[in-house]
Amino acid sequence: MTNVKGILAGYSKELDSHIDKFLPFEKPDNLMEATVQYPRAGGKRMRPAMVLAAAGAVGGNKEDAIPLAVAIEYIHNFTLIHDDYMDGDEKRRGMTTIHVKYGGPTAILAGDALFARAFEVIAHLNVPDSVVRGVLKIVTRAVWDLARGQQMDVNNENGEEVTMDEYIETIRLKTSVLFAAGAAGGALIGGADSRTVDAVHEYAMLLGVAFQMFDDVLGLVGDPVKLGKSVGNDVRKGKSTVMVTHALKSIKDQSVMSEFRSILGKANASEDDIRKARKIMEDAGSVDFAVKMAEDYTRRAIAKLDVLSPGEDKEFMIALAEYAMKRDV
Amino acid sequence: MTNVKGILAGYSKELDSHIDKFLPFEKPDNLMEATVQYPRAGGKRMRPAMVLAAAGAVGGNKEDAIPLAVAIEYIHNFTLIHDDYMDGDEKRRGMTTIHVKYGGPTAILAGDALFARAFEVIAHLNVPDSVVRGVLKIVTRAVWDLARGQQMDVNNENGEEVTMDEYIETIRLKTSVLFAAGAAGGALIGGADSRTVDAVHEYAMLLGVAFQMFDDVLGLVGDPVKLGKSVGNDVRKGKSTVMVTHALKSIKDQSVMSEFRSILGKANASEDDIRKARKIMEDAGSVDFAVKMAEDYTRRAIAKLDVLSPGEDKEFMIALAEYAMKRDV
Repeated sequence: MTNVKGILAGYSKELDSHIDKFLPFEKPDNLMEATVQYPRAGGKRMRPAMVLAAAGAVGGNKEDAIPLAVAIEYIHNFTLIHDDYMDGDEKRRGMTTIHVKYGGPTAILAGDALFARAFEVIAHLNVPDSVVRGVLKIVTRAVWDLARGQQMDVNNENGEEVTMDEYIETIRLKTSVLFAAGAAGGALIGGADSRTVDAVHEYAMLLGVAFQMFDDVLGLVGDPVKLGKSVGNDVRKGKSTVMVTHALKSIKDQSVMSEFRSILGKANASEDDIRKARKIMEDAGSVDFAVKMAEDYTRRAIAKLDVLSPGEDKEFMIALAEYAMKRDV
Repeated sequence: MTNVKGILAGYSKELDSHIDKFLPFEKPDNLMEATVQYPRAGGKRMRPAMVLAAAGAVGGNKEDAIPLAVAIEYIHNFTLIHDDYMDGDEKRRGMTTIHVKYGGPTAILAGDALFARAFEVIAHLNVPDSVVRGVLKIVTRAVWDLARGQQMDVNNENGEEVTMDEYIETIRLKTSVLFAAGAAGGALIGGADSRTVDAVHEYAMLLGVAFQMFDDVLGLVGDPVKLGKSVGNDVRKGKSTVMVTHALKSIKDQSVMSEFRSILGKANASEDDIRKARKIMEDAGSVDFAVKMAEDYTRRAIAKLDVLSPGEDKEFMIALAEYAMKRDV
């Protein structure tokens, strides 16, 4: 059986030296320190791993795809820096966030700098010019969509109730598109034909939805210690996750509904409030519903890979989709 | 004599339709409104004009360079949106700034979206793939430098006194690099050889310094009505402009020096304070010094254009450099 965590750790180790190589230290110091902090800090590195696996799975040379893997990780980190500032989050993976440590302006600029460097790395890819252009088209479109998805999320968190379809569209834009751009870009660099590039793109779009949906589940019922953050924050923000939308449609008892609504969006909800809201959603079958829906997306994602020849990179991509649903962090 | 304002107005009109064409309205509405506001609002459009003029001046087809002109204008506007938020400015060209109208998160995202779209437009340039890669290298490097320059400016405004050389380096990074990327990119699209691309790049780097230095002069001695903003804000921020640095080295009288220092960096300095500081700098010869220095940069910029064959686009580029020093706004 494919050891996803082990393979991710291997990719992560390989990437670390390249992450630094493409971020030479220039003036001013405070901007550079802010720029390198998140990329150096690690994380699951799922996105860059997907770039490399896709390049290999289509029969290409993974080495050629390393700069794109780094660029996708920079883009992911640029969005984290900006998101943390927007959300006013003070901690990420146990570290003080950039805007708290260096101030808001530096957080904005560090994100912008990483964004620019990501595309500079793409410009220098050691592949034919036509492939650079193709990768550029895919990745620029993804970043445009990321901004749209993040704005939808902001609007949603400002209490605008959305339908389940709208929430899934938000996830697609906010999370899936970068997975998909990485996978499709990797496949393109690996020399895949357009049908294969499209299939790999769709795989990653579906996987991204499953990943984010299960992330929402963990954010409610996960272990705060393992996650490194408190649970229930989506409830406090009144976010229309799949679980919340399902519960609002399913709860029949008016007193339960009014209790649920009284906690939803309550910024200072206590841990006891969160436990109550969680219990209400569990009783309404909303958590199971979200897990099943995520599983369904995972299955559909894996089916898209039928176009690929068998091999260990394909196996890893299948296992990565399953891992999105099995992880505890 | 070349009518710079008239030619700029002509380019501006031509660009307007393209500015909109490359920004199709997608969801969510608030992000899209925030994204289009600055690009639609106009301004001097010096940067895109320089892209087109450079393409023409090297004997190329200006039509091919229009998307890059638009992309450079998007990048300029993305930096304005982020800068206005960082600086807490409430007005730009008489309009309410994005972060005031739509909130800080939307200002960050609208900037990010414009940034992404700029590079998407570059990806779709109707030129050979090798030229796309060349333009991408030039422009991504410029945006990285813009972030560095802006951070230096933030550090400077936070009261960190800098030398004149450091201030000029800040201007180069904050202002010149985007002029230069536009000019060099335009020349590249126009089919110029690398020696010509480099010369045009240097022309625009020097012009950018002259432009910003004269902008600082206008920000002290200009007409607030014509400028559409109050004067003396650099003094209030304690910014080490060329004039301030010169004055600090030149003032001999200790009582004058202590009065000057008491106003410099005084956030709530009155108009009377500003008049006093201005008088002190004028008496110390600091305003004349800055104007002469800017004129010298203009001369050096124009000399770089010797490599170009005579023609109306070259004439416009020369006149544009002179205009940077003659304008009143």
